[in-house]
Amino acid sequence: MAIPELQWAQVNEGGRLHFKQIPVPKPGKGEVLVNILYSGVCHTDFHALNGDWPFPPNDPLIGGHEGAGVVVSKGELTEGIEIGDKVGVKWINNICLKETTYCVPRRNSLAIPRTGHSSVGASSVLSDPSLANRMGTEYCLAQAATVARIPDGCNMAAVAPILCAGITVYKGLKTSECKPGQTVAIVGAGGGLGSLAQQYAKAMGLRVIAIDGGEEKGKMSLEELGADTYIDFLKSKDIVNDVKKATADGLGPHGVILVSTSPKPFEQASEYVRPNGTVVPIGLPPDANIKASVFWGVLKMLRIKCSYVGTRRDTAEALDFFARGLIKAPYKLIGLGQLQEVYALMEKGQVLGRYVLDMSK
Amino acid sequence: MAIPELQWAQVNEGGRLHFKQIPVPKPGKGEVLVNILYSGVCHTDFHALNGDWPFPPNDPLIGGHEGAGVVVSKGELTEGIEIGDKVGVKWINNICLKETTYCVPRRNSLAIPRTGHSSVGASSVLSDPSLANRMGTEYCLAQAATVARIPDGCNMAAVAPILCAGITVYKGLKTSECKPGQTVAIVGAGGGLGSLAQQYAKAMGLRVIAIDGGEEKGKMSLEELGADTYIDFLKSKDIVNDVKKATADGLGPHGVILVSTSPKPFEQASEYVRPNGTVVPIGLPPDANIKASVFWGVLKMLRIKCSYVGTRRDTAEALDFFARGLIKAPYKLIGLGQLQEVYALMEKGQVLGRYVLDMSK
Amino acid sequence: MAIPELQWAQVNEGGRLHFKQIPVPKPGKGEVLVNILYSGVCHTDFHALNGDWPFPPNDPLIGGHEGAGVVVSKGELTEGIEIGDKVGVKWINNICLKETTYCVPRRNSLAIPRTGHSSVGASSVLSDPSLANRMGTEYCLAQAATVARIPDGCNMAAVAPILCAGITVYKGLKTSECKPGQTVAIVGAGGGLGSLAQQYAKAMGLRVIAIDGGEEKGKMSLEELGADTYIDFLKSKDIVNDVKKATADGLGPHGVILVSTSPKPFEQASEYVRPNGTVVPIGLPPDANIKASVFWGVLKMLRIKCSYVGTRRDTAEALDFFARGLIKAPYKLIGLGQLQEVYALMEKGQVLGRYVLDMSK
Amino acid sequence: MAIPELQWAQVNEGGRLHFKQIPVPKPGKGEVLVNILYSGVCHTDFHALNGDWPFPPNDPLIGGHEGAGVVVSKGELTEGIEIGDKVGVKWINNICLKETTYCVPRRNSLAIPRTGHSSVGASSVLSDPSLANRMGTEYCLAQAATVARIPDGCNMAAVAPILCAGITVYKGLKTSECKPGQTVAIVGAGGGLGSLAQQYAKAMGLRVIAIDGGEEKGKMSLEELGADTYIDFLKSKDIVNDVKKATADGLGPHGVILVSTSPKPFEQASEYVRPNGTVVPIGLPPDANIKASVFWGVLKMLRIKCSYVGTRRDTAEALDFFARGLIKAPYKLIGLGQLQEVYALMEKGQVLGRYVLDMSK
Repeated sequence: MAIPELQWAQVNEGGRLHFKQIPVPKPGKGEVLVNILYSGVCHTDFHALNGDWPFPPNDPLIGGHEGAGVVVSKGELTEGIEIGDKVGVKWINNICLKETTYCVPRRNSLAIPRTGHSSVGASSVLSDPSLANRMGTEYCLAQAATVARIPDGCNMAAVAPILCAGITVYKGLKTSECKPGQTVAIVGAGGGLGSLAQQYAKAMGLRVIAIDGGEEKGKMSLEELGADTYIDFLKSKDIVNDVKKATADGLGPHGVILVSTSPKPFEQASEYVRPNGTVVPIGLPPDANIKASVFWGVLKMLRIKCSYVGTRRDTAEALDFFARGLIKAPYKLIGLGQLQEVYALMEKGQVLGRYVLDMSK
Repeated sequence: MAIPELQWAQVNEGGRLHFKQIPVPKPGKGEVLVNILYSGVCHTDFHALNGDWPFPPNDPLIGGHEGAGVVVSKGELTEGIEIGDKVGVKWINNICLKETTYCVPRRNSLAIPRTGHSSVGASSVLSDPSLANRMGTEYCLAQAATVARIPDGCNMAAVAPILCAGITVYKGLKTSECKPGQTVAIVGAGGGLGSLAQQYAKAMGLRVIAIDGGEEKGKMSLEELGADTYIDFLKSKDIVNDVKKATADGLGPHGVILVSTSPKPFEQASEYVRPNGTVVPIGLPPDANIKASVFWGVLKMLRIKCSYVGTRRDTAEALDFFARGLIKAPYKLIGLGQLQEVYALMEKGQVLGRYVLDMSK
Repeated sequence: MAIPELQWAQVNEGGRLHFKQIPVPKPGKGEVLVNILYSGVCHTDFHALNGDWPFPPNDPLIGGHEGAGVVVSKGELTEGIEIGDKVGVKWINNICLKETTYCVPRRNSLAIPRTGHSSVGASSVLSDPSLANRMGTEYCLAQAATVARIPDGCNMAAVAPILCAGITVYKGLKTSECKPGQTVAIVGAGGGLGSLAQQYAKAMGLRVIAIDGGEEKGKMSLEELGADTYIDFLKSKDIVNDVKKATADGLGPHGVILVSTSPKPFEQASEYVRPNGTVVPIGLPPDANIKASVFWGVLKMLRIKCSYVGTRRDTAEALDFFARGLIKAPYKLIGLGQLQEVYALMEKGQVLGRYVLDMSK
Repeated sequence: MAIPELQWAQVNEGGRLHFKQIPVPKPGKGEVLVNILYSGVCHTDFHALNGDWPFPPNDPLIGGHEGAGVVVSKGELTEGIEIGDKVGVKWINNICLKETTYCVPRRNSLAIPRTGHSSVGASSVLSDPSLANRMGTEYCLAQAATVARIPDGCNMAAVAPILCAGITVYKGLKTSECKPGQTVAIVGAGGGLGSLAQQYAKAMGLRVIAIDGGEEKGKMSLEELGADTYIDFLKSKDIVNDVKKATADGLGPHGVILVSTSPKPFEQASEYVRPNGTVVPIGLPPDANIKASVFWGVLKMLRIKCSYVGTRRDTAEALDFFARGLIKAPYKLIGLGQLQEVYALMEKGQVLGRYVLDMSK
């Protein structure tokens, strides 16, 4: 199949999206060119577009960091990966491959991207000055060593959200150190990350307390996603007590996964988590703070462990759960040209599950 | 040796200390009576006296929770411990011995005291309605199963501070998960806990950054306690940068032990700890909060793990380090009748090392 | 309900079972008397009867160590447990409750029994000189602190085998450190322990390779117990290769649980376990040895971790899985008087699942 | 400095060493050429020469896998490493850099070498068909991503043995999971690996029982290497009891590091290790077996964890201990031309400490 010279892309320029044509890049040493078929739309892209974080993203910027596609061309030094291979391209798609302090085992999501941004942990998505290695385009560059292998038989549209949302919640659940049989609360349970987190938790042998707002999300959590209990924060008069009461001994969940897009739960979780339990901040609401009383924190031996994306190993494991049919990410398909409509829904907090872009439209 | 009917005690009544005589209690089932020879004076007692915490302590209350002494009498069901045995009595001196949720392995410092206070993790020191099992008296009751065995050859006055301060910092260092060769910052390094923490850290193969105020504490840290670096917060113009620069690669310490009595470091530590490093709150300054930006916390995979006293196993280990001569707790001896003078120094922040009460004076 | 003076028991005396009446004991301090309703029959009892181990068991000896019953009387110092409570009595039913080296967290199955046998790890079942605290009788003494709480709603006959077989395989699976999504091989998959191990593994999110002999066991494993693959060692021409091939990447299972009653698998498992995988010996075939080449062991970073019964915490967790309905122990009910018939079947290797004694018959 | 066309090497050909000239290789993509200044002589080389293992090494073969030198030339794609950098070249000097099953975190010493040998875990030293990337020559090729950075100020001859022996024993000690304050037995304590193991153990806060044969090794262990106890197996009448008695409570060491060159200790260690302690096989005596009784292994919850070389991260840590001056590897310097003399001493078991080759002689 011929690789075109130009491709369509949604480019964030001067604070607005422009749907326009840009050049298709060529893979350099150690790189492959991936024809992105489907790309998930993540709240993070929307935050980046809005400049919600402490530092400004590049301008122009192309969003997208959950791309599922096919290798169509490769540069030198890319042994072990072939044209035609089905791969995923992720948030962190370019790492140094040295086992230095921040590529150390279990922590390589902290890898400093090769593109040069000095801030530890910042990813190529925010720092890449080019527009080449972005999954929000039809053709995207990626470092051969960091692309994920998509197992045979996977639905390529459905798998896209696994490549960021899936990895992220799976790693967060591992970070919680919850063991099979224990209980995890998932805050923001009905959103893109939350709906995956519930299913991963179930597949990992955990009991699930889903926390979110509205009846529709409750119904979905209990009937489709595997929650044991649903707590509607719009109705609850005492969230802390309601969460505690949802555990058999009334002492609260062993872990709390924070994928909410509002800041309040990040201060509240330390109150209902079980003594010596673990709160795992993952979501990035603007201006949110982790906060807890030192006195009560110490007396209950509180643990707070932030989690951020995941390593290549986490990726392979998260994909394996999906390939076994244990994770059914609810998604809606929409054309690349309609990205603006998804962002409009996000602004209103009306996204249920995940939107996935069909890059060919 | 005859056990008297009455004994001297420092009783906190109506917010003031009264030095007066009270009855010597008799051991019940599973209990021993310990003749306390020496008792360390901890900032925690002073906080309790002042009502610095979210709930009021008992009134009247007797302080003290680092007592070293000798078993002088025992109740029924106390096999394995004999009159004449040298023992330590600790903050948590009465636990349920069931392996329930809060006596679970590695967490038994969260044991609910048998004396009945319903708050999880609250200790008998704050909740015991009697005055019987307090180490701030010459004769104190203790549960036979929770007293610590003091190894032969230990100086009984010097070992007293190990029984709370020593255990607490040793457990905190374990909680940090720092491995031999890595670097730990100790905030409040010159105080009672900090001066022990430095020595335990050294004995555990760690590098130490001592943080405190004033030249005297710096000199003691570097020359006697084993610190590799001392940072004087009274002089530093940029604590965050100075701490980072004290590590070989400039990325900050792997762990931070917070034994400061002021709240500021509890918010600041997350800024200088290394990505994926661990902040360990231990000290209990009034109204202090753990606080960190969610955004930066997630991007650097921050871990905050509160630590509280230690288990019986931690106690035996902490005492073993002391018995091997690796921990030289700097202490000053003073009579029980002079307790008020120590509190006066604490109020002014002028305590260097630990005061230990000679209970016979 | 009146407690009788005499009760029926199966007493192993001079190498033979005698069904006769013995006195009902009275609970001492810290003890309860439990009316055993159902008692599982474990291969271990049969080994003890036959003197299959390196040291002789007591003579006379009463078997049984999986008793489910009701508290009917209690001694002093047994707060927190009431007459009428439903409890389980286990292999290790009398521990020192001190957090000494062998009661330390995570290892209290190594507790030295209070009855005095000097051999570390030896249990009261083998060392108890009295016949009082045995579950193979209608009325059995147990230390109040070590009895297991049986959750409401549990079938008392079905829960009995959980109290040894269930705990043991559950702890073995924890010991393997296999994570949800990984693969565990269970050798002896169709026996009493194996059939429980398969179900626990499934509930913990693991993939299961069941290994045993015969079609009936294969059918039960695949259709009822949750195995993903069954390997029949009676038919396989190359066990090592067949086990490896049953994993997606052909590298072998991450963990191997050895509950076989024959010695061969204990030498073979190191060959098919994945590099850096874990072999967990649990079963106790007479004269069996753990054996592996140092050369290949080192090059594949082999790990062998023996597992033995479980702690009180493990017990509570294992019972929780059962109470949630995730474990369906296949069992057959038989009267206490018919114990000899079960042993006869064991001798022929014809026991499928577990026999449970109805103690009232 | 000019790079010559030819260099001297000790080539193992047809079972005999030949000291002759071979070509200097040129670095390909991702590779650097290192001028090896010093190269440690390891027992492993001698085993390879003798064909002591289950598979034949290449013929011809050049030994050496502890090389310390300077980068003199580099190929393409070697950013981050410069000509003049001081580096170490190790046993595993060529890995796939993919985070696949065997490059996973904490396990990358199991990496499959790029040179193609299909056996998992086999290293390039044994499988490399070329003679190019061997440290037993003056000029050696190495993958840029796997060379170790030697910290400033290190003695280049002294650091050479750290690059295999040091890494290996350091990783073995980590694998034992012994915590500061606990006791480790080192079997083969006076040899090249053992003498380093003693010092690493001490620096990690452990107590050391050194086990070896002869007075000279005892004196060196106790006076120079930090052992707390020395047990001479040539004199001991009951090794098992003597090792147990060397621990304070008589229960045996928490960990056992097996770096002996004879097979017996590999069967004996399980008898004296503490219940639930860890035996770590590292050395590779021909035909040795790991062996233990299943019965006693299970009752004492024995753990056997084989350890093999170490990862890049382990390497950086092991070098850091050396650079801090905590490890003084006793070594003797000898010219490359005299290698045969060292092997002659090895054959007689007369090597005390480590021999290091000066490659320029």
